[in-house]
Amino acid sequence: MTRTIKGAEIARHIRARVAERVAETTATGRVPGLATILVGDDPASAVYVAAKRRAIREAGMRDVHRRLPHHATQTEVAAVIDELAAAPDVHGILLQLPLPAQLDAPPLIDRIPVTKDVDGLTTASAGRLARGERGLRPCTPSGVIELLDAEGIELKGACVAVVGWGELVGRPLAQLLLRRGATVTVAHEFTADLTAVTRPADVVVVATGVRGLIGPEHIKPGATVIDVGIHRTPEGLTGDVRAAELDGIAGRITPVPGGVGPMTIAMLLVNTLQAAEWEAERETVPA
Amino acid sequence: MTRTIKGAEIARHIRARVAERVAETTATGRVPGLATILVGDDPASAVYVAAKRRAIREAGMRDVHRRLPHHATQTEVAAVIDELAAAPDVHGILLQLPLPAQLDAPPLIDRIPVTKDVDGLTTASAGRLARGERGLRPCTPSGVIELLDAEGIELKGACVAVVGWGELVGRPLAQLLLRRGATVTVAHEFTADLTAVTRPADVVVVATGVRGLIGPEHIKPGATVIDVGIHRTPEGLTGDVRAAELDGIAGRITPVPGGVGPMTIAMLLVNTLQAAEWEAERETVPA
Repeated sequence: MTRTIKGAEIARHIRARVAERVAETTATGRVPGLATILVGDDPASAVYVAAKRRAIREAGMRDVHRRLPHHATQTEVAAVIDELAAAPDVHGILLQLPLPAQLDAPPLIDRIPVTKDVDGLTTASAGRLARGERGLRPCTPSGVIELLDAEGIELKGACVAVVGWGELVGRPLAQLLLRRGATVTVAHEFTADLTAVTRPADVVVVATGVRGLIGPEHIKPGATVIDVGIHRTPEGLTGDVRAAELDGIAGRITPVPGGVGPMTIAMLLVNTLQAAEWEAERETVPA
Repeated sequence: MTRTIKGAEIARHIRARVAERVAETTATGRVPGLATILVGDDPASAVYVAAKRRAIREAGMRDVHRRLPHHATQTEVAAVIDELAAAPDVHGILLQLPLPAQLDAPPLIDRIPVTKDVDGLTTASAGRLARGERGLRPCTPSGVIELLDAEGIELKGACVAVVGWGELVGRPLAQLLLRRGATVTVAHEFTADLTAVTRPADVVVVATGVRGLIGPEHIKPGATVIDVGIHRTPEGLTGDVRAAELDGIAGRITPVPGGVGPMTIAMLLVNTLQAAEWEAERETVPA
């Protein structure tokens, strides 16, 4: 029997815990605030931002939103980031990606102060993660760790295969797993023998953007499979893993949808609350 | 027949190339300068710093040195770093580690401007490496990559085991190898079955600080073995690998001494030259 990891349910619990804490800090006069910036008219981005804003409001946080036209210039986007960086009631800034083609994303991302970088994507946050310093971690990989923790999977000493070495998931996730004491192998498009990497692993995390890449030949019986992929198909949403074929082989598996996806928004709220709490700390304990 | 990777010779070639470039830039009135800071009386540190300063002078670079007593305070060390950070004839700053116990190393390291961080150890440099941005990389892992390149070992698609996940070698090295397209496994003290990690690997890099940890049982016949360890013993210097036992098994192996060690100083010179060239670029092309 393969157990389904109920990401949606775990995310709901986390969001409820965040809402409780937000209610507490709000009672003391501090409302955590999260600002979303949406540039242009990409429909998928609009859907994601709407879902994030709904979650922000449901958690009792302040929902700040800036919308810029698709022809916005680098200077215009930078000015909005600077305004939000200076705003005392904004604790987190999320610049929705991808940006329209005329914009140069990395310097705009790096304009977000590290203390408000709730997406954990700035160079400064990457440095803090690499050096093991306190900081905000990217939401999707943190969500993967939370799922594994919620399932009671021991990471220390576990063999984990990370398939995909992208900026948003694979790279930070490999580091988070190593910090937890896992033996980590990272595979990617140049990996010659993917099965040799995934087959010995106790946990396989797949974040490649290649639909149905992973099947039963890749997975050790009883292993945990985390599918970060999401693909829109005529038959509905599906992932990087051929989940149906793993039934009875994998020990546990995340569904698509309802697995990793809901965790990303939950961790965004966790990061915003964390940023607000650290901000309060800095105000009470001057550096 | 196991081939010895002649690190000392490869390092000599690199240093000669650096010296040529230094002579060229010196002819245009720009002498690359490297400042070393030594705090306290640790004899090993004194030996390392002396070797670095000798290499700096041999390359024709400006040798700037600051010596502080073992009881130096955080503020005193910070002031020296700030002075060197502001000095226009200093292109690189090296703070010799370890520091005396009363000092808090991370904030002092992070005080070095990222443009002068020739050891590549600041949080800012770690972030640049993690995000694949232009920057100065830590010397020992860069030296390992140079050795593999000098031997003509194809990294793209190769299976590489990195044994040891320390701040100075393992962590940055894993990222450098992934950037080059290797499939990378990182093992460490919590790894349950080290042989299972190293035995399939085409290249095994060992940086654990555990003398003689790796023997013939760990290595696939024909694999390349890079030994970053260095231990002073009554029988002389020795590494993390039982090199004699690997003769006839490993395809290539670095000796200790004369393997990775000399590369670290060579890469420090490469980084200093690079920092001076980027500085010259910034002066001619205003941001």
